[in-house]
Amino acid sequence: MDDVQIARVTQSFSAQSIMATFGAKLAEVETGRVVIEAPILPGSKQQQGFGHAGLTFSIGDSAAGYAALGTMPLDSEVLTAEMKINLLAPARGDLLRATGWVIKPGRRLVVVGAEVHAIRNGDLTLVAVMQGTMLPVPAQG
Amino acid sequence: MDDVQIARVTQSFSAQSIMATFGAKLAEVETGRVVIEAPILPGSKQQQGFGHAGLTFSIGDSAAGYAALGTMPLDSEVLTAEMKINLLAPARGDLLRATGWVIKPGRRLVVVGAEVHAIRNGDLTLVAVMQGTMLPVPAQG
Amino acid sequence: MDDVQIARVTQSFSAQSIMATFGAKLAEVETGRVVIEAPILPGSKQQQGFGHAGLTFSIGDSAAGYAALGTMPLDSEVLTAEMKINLLAPARGDLLRATGWVIKPGRRLVVVGAEVHAIRNGDLTLVAVMQGTMLPVPAQG
Amino acid sequence: MDDVQIARVTQSFSAQSIMATFGAKLAEVETGRVVIEAPILPGSKQQQGFGHAGLTFSIGDSAAGYAALGTMPLDSEVLTAEMKINLLAPARGDLLRATGWVIKPGRRLVVVGAEVHAIRNGDLTLVAVMQGTMLPVPAQG
Repeated sequence: MDDVQIARVTQSFSAQSIMATFGAKLAEVETGRVVIEAPILPGSKQQQGFGHAGLTFSIGDSAAGYAALGTMPLDSEVLTAEMKINLLAPARGDLLRATGWVIKPGRRLVVVGAEVHAIRNGDLTLVAVMQGTMLPVPAQG
Repeated sequence: MDDVQIARVTQSFSAQSIMATFGAKLAEVETGRVVIEAPILPGSKQQQGFGHAGLTFSIGDSAAGYAALGTMPLDSEVLTAEMKINLLAPARGDLLRATGWVIKPGRRLVVVGAEVHAIRNGDLTLVAVMQGTMLPVPAQG
Repeated sequence: MDDVQIARVTQSFSAQSIMATFGAKLAEVETGRVVIEAPILPGSKQQQGFGHAGLTFSIGDSAAGYAALGTMPLDSEVLTAEMKINLLAPARGDLLRATGWVIKPGRRLVVVGAEVHAIRNGDLTLVAVMQGTMLPVPAQG
Repeated sequence: MDDVQIARVTQSFSAQSIMATFGAKLAEVETGRVVIEAPILPGSKQQQGFGHAGLTFSIGDSAAGYAALGTMPLDSEVLTAEMKINLLAPARGDLLRATGWVIKPGRRLVVVGAEVHAIRNGDLTLVAVMQGTMLPVPAQG
């Protein structure tokens, strides 16, 4: 992946204010694969004190979206058309790590997958798997 | 819906810290139907300045979950087993309103639906439809 | 809905050989809404003797697809991009009735819904709800 | 996987009459992984002459279901609770091969995945990816 592609993923990520709200960081950026990590902040929880499904979804969706973006021409952006999440275990731990990847690139649609692990004292637990579709659109501005 | 059921939905909602982070409010609580509203805060956005899909998902998922909870015995809670979201339009406006409902109640699984509208200068736009499954579990504590 | 639109839905349905295999019929065709009915044939069952999820899916998917097709220009076809099905009850009875509808029309994507009822001695049971995306493509030939 | 488990998967498969209608065969059975193959019969097509999404779904769903079944005690069966399919390419070729696997086993829910390839003159094309939930229920009879 060249520096221009990495730069545009990094810039777009920085422009997603919800990622800052969640304390999320772009941990790895490769062609067709992106990793995002986020702590389970005091303000990101569900009623039992675990990470809210919305946090898990948000970083998984963004990881999948940026994996897709890295396969697109520079005059395109991507929007989530649809996403399915199966939650496998409570998001319990210090940190969530979402890995998104491209299953099928395309000009009209990009099919993506993601998985999210919770990390607790160094142990990883798979907490969610996701499958969805990104829609390429012309870049703004 | 009796006061005890309304109270437990309200208490559980208050315990979801992510809802406070998003500035979300429980707007309506009926048996099998719950409405949650959230402003599109400066810290809830995607890269184009619209509400992030994670915000839309979070309030839709919680609305559907509380709709399910209100149909369950008081010694149960619900967790999201899986959820599918189709995004129909950018979340553009002042406020998002998520309405969740029960499609099929059950002891083992509760099938739910949700829709999310964006409100902009009083006009409503449907921005997402959701369909998923809530898993009843014994209440803690 | 004009006769030309109805004719093209009917012709396309007739060209889906799987519908004949299932004994399925196009029961209603309106703009943005289509009903397909199929008996639960001896050759359409799962291991307990109920209709197989694949039968339920097939007629729900086709009903949703033809609902979308009826909203498209005559030089377009639609293909299923993705579909989610929640199964609510066994497909038990004499006949399945799938109703598909358009949630959000569009040139690039059409978001659709469907529900499938089983009919048994005149009683209807909701056995499945579906939500998905149809992709418009240029018509062949 | 022991012979008793293989036998019960094989027997249940034989009892799914829709599999015979599609000419489908159980090609591989291992713990947590099952492969089903089906020709694209003249009676299994959509309007363009490719395999219908319902055929792809049916064998993917059954492959995932039997992958789950093989991880369950002998007094249990599984039913599909929900399934999401993304279609990546037309089902064009001589044969479809569906591989189902268990993502997360469980007593209450089993999360599964599947992928379906079309085989044409010996070349494989990935035509669908699936993600869903199987619900264990007591065995009948």
